[in-house]
Amino acid sequence: MTIAKAAAIGGGVIGAGWVARLLLNGIDVAIYDPDPEASRKVGEVMKGARRAYKKMLPEGLPKEGKLTFAKTIAEAVKDADFIQESVPERLDLKHKVLAEIDTHAPANSIVGSSTSGIKPTDMQVAMKKHPERLVVGHPFNPVYLLPLVEIVGGEQTFPEAIEVAKEIYASIGMKPVVIRKEIEAFVGDRLLEAAWREALWLVKDGICTVEELDDIMRYSFGIRWAQMGMFQVYRVAGGEAGMRHFMAQFGPCLKWPWTKLMDVPEFNDELVDLIAMQSDEQSDKWSIRELEKIRDDNLVAIMEALSRQNKGKGWGAGELYNDYTKQLSKLASKKAKPALKSKAAKSATKAKAEKPVKKVTAKKSAAKPAKKAGKKKG
Amino acid sequence: MTIAKAAAIGGGVIGAGWVARLLLNGIDVAIYDPDPEASRKVGEVMKGARRAYKKMLPEGLPKEGKLTFAKTIAEAVKDADFIQESVPERLDLKHKVLAEIDTHAPANSIVGSSTSGIKPTDMQVAMKKHPERLVVGHPFNPVYLLPLVEIVGGEQTFPEAIEVAKEIYASIGMKPVVIRKEIEAFVGDRLLEAAWREALWLVKDGICTVEELDDIMRYSFGIRWAQMGMFQVYRVAGGEAGMRHFMAQFGPCLKWPWTKLMDVPEFNDELVDLIAMQSDEQSDKWSIRELEKIRDDNLVAIMEALSRQNKGKGWGAGELYNDYTKQLSKLASKKAKPALKSKAAKSATKAKAEKPVKKVTAKKSAAKPAKKAGKKKG
Repeated sequence: MTIAKAAAIGGGVIGAGWVARLLLNGIDVAIYDPDPEASRKVGEVMKGARRAYKKMLPEGLPKEGKLTFAKTIAEAVKDADFIQESVPERLDLKHKVLAEIDTHAPANSIVGSSTSGIKPTDMQVAMKKHPERLVVGHPFNPVYLLPLVEIVGGEQTFPEAIEVAKEIYASIGMKPVVIRKEIEAFVGDRLLEAAWREALWLVKDGICTVEELDDIMRYSFGIRWAQMGMFQVYRVAGGEAGMRHFMAQFGPCLKWPWTKLMDVPEFNDELVDLIAMQSDEQSDKWSIRELEKIRDDNLVAIMEALSRQNKGKGWGAGELYNDYTKQLSKLASKKAKPALKSKAAKSATKAKAEKPVKKVTAKKSAAKPAKKAGKKKG
Repeated sequence: MTIAKAAAIGGGVIGAGWVARLLLNGIDVAIYDPDPEASRKVGEVMKGARRAYKKMLPEGLPKEGKLTFAKTIAEAVKDADFIQESVPERLDLKHKVLAEIDTHAPANSIVGSSTSGIKPTDMQVAMKKHPERLVVGHPFNPVYLLPLVEIVGGEQTFPEAIEVAKEIYASIGMKPVVIRKEIEAFVGDRLLEAAWREALWLVKDGICTVEELDDIMRYSFGIRWAQMGMFQVYRVAGGEAGMRHFMAQFGPCLKWPWTKLMDVPEFNDELVDLIAMQSDEQSDKWSIRELEKIRDDNLVAIMEALSRQNKGKGWGAGELYNDYTKQLSKLASKKAKPALKSKAAKSATKAKAEKPVKKVTAKKSAAKPAKKAGKKKG
């Protein structure tokens, strides 16, 4: 399942990240964002993304999709088969935007929401025509580089919509993981939230500064988690005795007072000041743009390094990186690059015209009652 | 400050990891472990570590230090200037072992404990002669590859002992971070514990399997955290508006019910079975040894990739990796490698003999009352 025409509603850091990933996959995107600065901001993200993709594909990028700025949501979604919503995390706003998308988008389109925490069941109530096509498709920043997308269906989401969404996200180089039960914040942000809350306590209590905490992460378990998650890491740490033994050993610690379990730190000016000040000390020698470049270079280098592991097959995000860069290279060889001479460009254009464009057939899901229609995804 | 002769008390996964790091740095180690299998187990870890270091240093490794198995703690520590304790996490056992170390170790030696959670103040009470030389030196598995070591001083620890410990750990390629206030579990394990507890809930509640949770980590924030910690990541995500703005946006979420904040999952057989079974499904296609190799290859590849970033200066663990591999290469060129021809070996031996061996002067700390003797590290 590939995307013929995409729409992005919202062009903040996340929305613009989606736009960049889609365009760099050669997909045309219509974006709607009421911010008068939207064009400049999306342009900045696009510049960063293009730079990162050039590192991934030194032989050349696919011809970029065309970006158009729509004046209304209706205009942006009217001929899109995939729509990604990335507006701020307020339920009333999500309702307003999703209702409008639902009214104007083709019936067979798939609607993904970038929300990092709101349940799809609570959002799709605003979609009077086709609530069954809404999924949460929660990405991680920078969207154009990090592959994970958490897919969550709501009570009204059709199982087929989830299947189509999985294929769509995979078609643009992502790793879709379908969350089995609908809960707020899903899985990634639950873990992040737990660590973040503990981190705020540690800084507030003066145990460490933000820079020290960051170093503690990136010189230890951060490197581990780039390649194995915590369960597999602990399995290995358990050694020959196995996971059951490891768990039995670790179990009692859960009762120890090793986290500030019962409390949320008061989020007052004092704490914000402390963290903002320490963050400046850590990082104000770089501008945000410089840090973005450093981050992107690092992420590409890590994925590239992992792509050469496991006897060249790649490991984790590196295995996916192999597939993705191969796919993009193939696309690049089919399509004209701006720098190509006219003759090459002509044949490339011809190739593009011949490329079969598969339509996303969400209509099947939307129109035909699914076997488990209306049932929450298991 | 370099180590002339080290002792390792305890040869489990962590203890053996220390032994491997020390030996591969050319340092002689005496180990004490009552386990009759200790020699085989340490040998296995050493084999893995040697393999990983060969990837780091294709031109050859330094001559390894000599490993001796001592029959008693007294024998292991009697002429060591650096002693690392890595026995199981039981305070009574730590007391017994540290008392024995304290009785028999040279007065000017530094004693590091690998504990991942016990406060040094609670441990050093068992050291009647020189409690002021005890620090926590908490590493991360695999100790021979991951650079972080959290250093924590207790109420009786002299500030100079902390300084010496920092230099010692740095001299074997590590990244020491001194924790500013003594708390249980320090910083790294507080963060791990918070994430682990949440992960157990997610699996117990059937939101995801251990494999899905692991994928969610390693395809998203895991890659991010290999190179920037959470505060710097969020600073970048905040974009032009800055950290203060980001914090203000994120603040309210802390009040949302996004983690199982108030509860610890009951650690019963059912949960252990569930996780052990899912872990088998995820990983039993590999043996633990195979997984260790994959993990080590990945870790080396990630650090090597990061070492080429930031205009070749390296970034984070990659910057340290540059320094460390340079240091080891220098050491390798000075010392005989087993594979070297006799002439080369002879000149290398000469070089070794000429190498000035600095003594760790912890005696200074131990003997002379420090300015802030007895005061908890700030």
